[in-house]
Amino acid sequence: MKRFFATLLTVTFTAVAAAQHPSLLLTERGVAEIRAARGEVPAFDRSLEATLRGADDALAQPIVVPQPKDGGGGYTHEQHKLNYYRMFDCGVAYQMTGEAKYARYVVDMLLAYAELYPTLGYHPVKLSGVPGRIFWQTLNESVWLVHTAIAYDCVYDCLTVKERRIIEARLFRPYADFVMNGTSDNRANNAVFNRMHNHGTWATAAVGMIGMAMGDDDLVDRALYGSDKTGRTGGFIRQLDCLFSPDGYFTEGAYYQRYAIWPFVVFAQCIEHKRPEIGIFRYRDGIIPKAVATLTQLAYEGRFLRFNDALDKGYDAQELIYAVDIAYNADPSNKQLLDIAARYQNKFLPTDAGYAVARDIARGEAEPLRFRSALYRDGREGDEGGIAVMRSTDPALNSLVTLKATSHGLSHGHYDKLTMAYYDNGNEVLTDYGAARFINIEAKYKGHYTRENKSFAMQTVAHNTLVVDGRSHFDGDIKRSSKYHSEIFFADFERPAVQIVSAVERNACEGVTMRRTTAYVTTDFLQYPLILDVVKAESAEEHCYDLPYWYNGHMISLDFPYERALRRMTTLGERNGYQHLWVEAEGRNTASSTSCFTWLVGDRFYSLSTATTPQTELRLVRAGANDPDFNLRGEPAYFIRENGKRNHTFCSALESHGTYDLQVEQSANLTASCRGIEMLVDTPECTVARFTFEGGRTVTLCVAYMGDGSSVHEAEAGGEQFEWTGYYDVRM
Amino acid sequence: MKRFFATLLTVTFTAVAAAQHPSLLLTERGVAEIRAARGEVPAFDRSLEATLRGADDALAQPIVVPQPKDGGGGYTHEQHKLNYYRMFDCGVAYQMTGEAKYARYVVDMLLAYAELYPTLGYHPVKLSGVPGRIFWQTLNESVWLVHTAIAYDCVYDCLTVKERRIIEARLFRPYADFVMNGTSDNRANNAVFNRMHNHGTWATAAVGMIGMAMGDDDLVDRALYGSDKTGRTGGFIRQLDCLFSPDGYFTEGAYYQRYAIWPFVVFAQCIEHKRPEIGIFRYRDGIIPKAVATLTQLAYEGRFLRFNDALDKGYDAQELIYAVDIAYNADPSNKQLLDIAARYQNKFLPTDAGYAVARDIARGEAEPLRFRSALYRDGREGDEGGIAVMRSTDPALNSLVTLKATSHGLSHGHYDKLTMAYYDNGNEVLTDYGAARFINIEAKYKGHYTRENKSFAMQTVAHNTLVVDGRSHFDGDIKRSSKYHSEIFFADFERPAVQIVSAVERNACEGVTMRRTTAYVTTDFLQYPLILDVVKAESAEEHCYDLPYWYNGHMISLDFPYERALRRMTTLGERNGYQHLWVEAEGRNTASSTSCFTWLVGDRFYSLSTATTPQTELRLVRAGANDPDFNLRGEPAYFIRENGKRNHTFCSALESHGTYDLQVEQSANLTASCRGIEMLVDTPECTVARFTFEGGRTVTLCVAYMGDGSSVHEAEAGGEQFEWTGYYDVRM
Repeated sequence: MKRFFATLLTVTFTAVAAAQHPSLLLTERGVAEIRAARGEVPAFDRSLEATLRGADDALAQPIVVPQPKDGGGGYTHEQHKLNYYRMFDCGVAYQMTGEAKYARYVVDMLLAYAELYPTLGYHPVKLSGVPGRIFWQTLNESVWLVHTAIAYDCVYDCLTVKERRIIEARLFRPYADFVMNGTSDNRANNAVFNRMHNHGTWATAAVGMIGMAMGDDDLVDRALYGSDKTGRTGGFIRQLDCLFSPDGYFTEGAYYQRYAIWPFVVFAQCIEHKRPEIGIFRYRDGIIPKAVATLTQLAYEGRFLRFNDALDKGYDAQELIYAVDIAYNADPSNKQLLDIAARYQNKFLPTDAGYAVARDIARGEAEPLRFRSALYRDGREGDEGGIAVMRSTDPALNSLVTLKATSHGLSHGHYDKLTMAYYDNGNEVLTDYGAARFINIEAKYKGHYTRENKSFAMQTVAHNTLVVDGRSHFDGDIKRSSKYHSEIFFADFERPAVQIVSAVERNACEGVTMRRTTAYVTTDFLQYPLILDVVKAESAEEHCYDLPYWYNGHMISLDFPYERALRRMTTLGERNGYQHLWVEAEGRNTASSTSCFTWLVGDRFYSLSTATTPQTELRLVRAGANDPDFNLRGEPAYFIRENGKRNHTFCSALESHGTYDLQVEQSANLTASCRGIEMLVDTPECTVARFTFEGGRTVTLCVAYMGDGSSVHEAEAGGEQFEWTGYYDVRM
Repeated sequence: MKRFFATLLTVTFTAVAAAQHPSLLLTERGVAEIRAARGEVPAFDRSLEATLRGADDALAQPIVVPQPKDGGGGYTHEQHKLNYYRMFDCGVAYQMTGEAKYARYVVDMLLAYAELYPTLGYHPVKLSGVPGRIFWQTLNESVWLVHTAIAYDCVYDCLTVKERRIIEARLFRPYADFVMNGTSDNRANNAVFNRMHNHGTWATAAVGMIGMAMGDDDLVDRALYGSDKTGRTGGFIRQLDCLFSPDGYFTEGAYYQRYAIWPFVVFAQCIEHKRPEIGIFRYRDGIIPKAVATLTQLAYEGRFLRFNDALDKGYDAQELIYAVDIAYNADPSNKQLLDIAARYQNKFLPTDAGYAVARDIARGEAEPLRFRSALYRDGREGDEGGIAVMRSTDPALNSLVTLKATSHGLSHGHYDKLTMAYYDNGNEVLTDYGAARFINIEAKYKGHYTRENKSFAMQTVAHNTLVVDGRSHFDGDIKRSSKYHSEIFFADFERPAVQIVSAVERNACEGVTMRRTTAYVTTDFLQYPLILDVVKAESAEEHCYDLPYWYNGHMISLDFPYERALRRMTTLGERNGYQHLWVEAEGRNTASSTSCFTWLVGDRFYSLSTATTPQTELRLVRAGANDPDFNLRGEPAYFIRENGKRNHTFCSALESHGTYDLQVEQSANLTASCRGIEMLVDTPECTVARFTFEGGRTVTLCVAYMGDGSSVHEAEAGGEQFEWTGYYDVRM
């Protein structure tokens, strides 16, 4: 009833609003303000000039609308992408200058497309289950239409009625119909349009925005409420309900959240302009601004945390310019967004929103971006685990630990339950490989995810987490993995000296319960924070437990004897990613029950000390074997193996230490402080571990695996009594 | 006679000047100016505050002058280094604030040293042929004394006569005597003091500066004119005559020129203050400012070109702050130095010179640093070959090619005759390994050059140059190598579209003459410049000729079939550096007479096309084998082998191409344009090679190996006539 009423209202309002152009990303008022302010906000002027230059470059060349032929990165693919950027630039240029030549360019190109489009069948590159016509996949068709709708909105008033009729009848309506419904032969597009997936969001945004530009309320309603207009199975509004957790987390992770956010903010901006009565930015407790905020938190030094299928992108990605500008325009009280725009982007949308951001930065309104430790719950209801991000509280430090205990994350998820990563001093320290892909590079499997993405990057062994018997979690079966999620057992970021998170995974390795407790500890005797990492495996059967720590930087030392592969190198295994690992060195520590690996990243040292026995197999490995096309980066890992164990707890302390200034050639504190790790108690109920450091200083970690925040726990070891209330205790 | 007169004059002047303190790096007038200007030049204030903070930090802790024990990077080594920085800071702080506590700190520390010093024998770490007492090598003793002399000069007027007597008698005089003369057991120090070597310059600067601080003209004269004061065999003045070529090039290369320049500029500044009549900055046609200028030119993006024993250092190194500030103070008309200081350093010496630089930057006097293509001749007389640096003339580009045809370069030289390197778009593209060393990291061979520096980094195969029969140049014998030098046959950087250099080496490989001609060509049909590289080997006997191209970045493709090491990897050879090379892939090109390797660096692609036959062995290799301690970086090379040839000419075209913008996911021009390379003529007299590109465009390079700039050359191939005047011609 409520929705029906909203729809009715909508129709009334938009019937009036339809006559106004532009009204998608630009408004008449916005354009007037921007034109009046030329020369007053130099940073915005530079962005606008880039757009105008893009428009002039477009005009300087003939319009080329080639017959579709190539896949991603290929000529026709790139030309059609270039075309929508050019139309966008020219559309904006027309609004900003009033010069008809820009509008004419858009119209002429649209007429060329209107001639081509009716002749097209499916794209000749048959690589997608959801094939497009201009592009090899419909996803790109949607992106084309989003940009083109904005351009059309900008030049709408310049077209003759006949031109509009031709372009709408031969291009936009069949195009929107194709994106929304597919063809009678292939209804895949319709499934995507109504699907709760970011490709579906691109499709709804595309159809909705061209509907708005044409003044076609029916298309807009279908975009908002699904192709059946009920709102029950599809549509943008339902996507807002389903695609983010209540904490604004997108299940595929930060890299794809970056991509997913784009159609959300663009279409939301249009909805706010055309159907303000929906209050789209307040919808679901403000899920859009919340998703933008969460995304900006899932970053380090402006680069998105690299987990699942992720490449190196950050705040400077074009999607983030859209996200930051539009989110700020929706809520100008959030001055931290200005800081992101000023420090990392310095590019602004040539729209009302971009202008507002640039103007307010120029007015000095930016406030420093503040990071916080947080748990981002996964799942539509927030009940499918989550990812914990623990950050340094001391602003002089710059470190971050993650523990990932989420659901699988759709097709871009990895088999990496309870994986962790560490960032410090501006660098990745314990790393996540991310995706094996050379996006848009034809020579590398046409720019798609390479074979090694599945055979290595997705496999458990490519991550800093437990591998049981050399098998990936859920045996690498996405169907099984998608049924389950890890659980956050507890998380506490409130104590000044200790931040901690503990998670459990019961399904990934049959018959084995995995737990990981990771703490970020500030001591008064170590130079930098101490990371404690306790990975506990429990099973009724004997297993081979592997725990790799993938690292960035250069190996400095191992404190036990090892044999280096000198003249010949072989692989660690045959399958599940192990076939990609060269064994560079192997050793055992018979002299001490704690083994330490030290490496250098940038100007700082990192030492990982782990409780081991003479049976523990310790290796240094490197990715790159069985990689016929050189698709892998040769990243290194420190690899700990405990064989023939029912239960085993990997207990490690990671120190960041040392001052290493090459410019003045001064160094200090280059060796680890940790002198020993004792597992005092290790039962199904709890673990008590003591870490001893130089000078006899100790840190004792007590973790309970049952009870709740008020339970009292007791344990005893060697006559020493331990008692604590709640999930954990850390004594120093 | 002239020198004798200068010396006489000196004595007269300095007898007067001796009473004034400070007068080494600071002057009374300078201090007054700096004190008056506090708050007016914020950038300088920040540097000065860092010094004052350093002084306060020093005062907050007890004075620790430990018994010498550790080598580089170890505790006592670092503590004694810290001590001289602390004395320096406190000396300056005293001058800037007038607060006696800072002077007292210096005096107390000097008294502590005066107690320790007479008790010391040689340092317990026996690793140097020139051992010190406080440090493991005398070099560090000299550096200590340079800093301490400055501190002593600053606080001189605060000491009681008795304190001066104790410190001078027990510390400075025996210390200077040790540095200058060594001991009766070991005269190595005396040899170094008088040697034409940068360690000798540190020694003369140290002795001269403490002489100046104490008012001891005899010490100053010995520093200037050798321990025998004749000026004929040793001393700073003679070092100025011998250690730089007439072009201001220091034979060890840029990295050590950085280090060598430090004592030169520091002592020169003191000489200018204390003995202005020498006109030290004008000496030998202004060799000191010329050496600073040459050093700043031997850099890319502010990092020194990496050849010979080099680590990653640049304009921000502390030596360069000394060099830039003091050179500017000596010649304030050179406003480009201000640009270096402002953009790369933003730190200033807390001295007259540093203040002058900061003040003039604040006045807006900086002029953009201009780079130019140049040949820097090697050798005291400029007749021992040289290094050519060819740079982009288009300011929108940022590329640089080097061809090294110098003398050996003393103990830090590599066996790399005619090696080349390429830098582009902000990155190293074709690289030079530089040194295998982890400076100051005890765990890595105590911070010294590692074994692999000799077994790999110095060997010919670690460089982008010709290896004959798997043997390094001069068989890696420095004595033989030091007898010879390569010759620059011609160099021409004057034509707008072509810069070119050609060099020859006749001694490095017995019975083989090597020539290399490298050209930086600007075409009107390629996106970025084209590098042509022609390496010609001539011999009466059959040889195996190897030409590696070490590269930075990720392998993208080879245009011929190859076999990748998948499950097992072995080394390329057994000795001369080959034992360190893993063979990652090998192949032959039976389908085409041109083979192409493409790789990605940053957001740009590089394609090296080479004329090959089906017999040419092509490999991808990677450093890292036979490296028991993980001392090597795993850098990759494309490796071309021609076996069983008397004469062979490697002829290659290196294209930089492609636009790869990950942020907007747009790419273009990702494949090589070169379609074929034909060796039209290849005789002992000349080479004519034609490079054909997409669309049939060609570049024809004609190079003569005899005659001079006005000789006429003729050649004929397949009925086509080639005639050119001078050393070369390039036709497009």
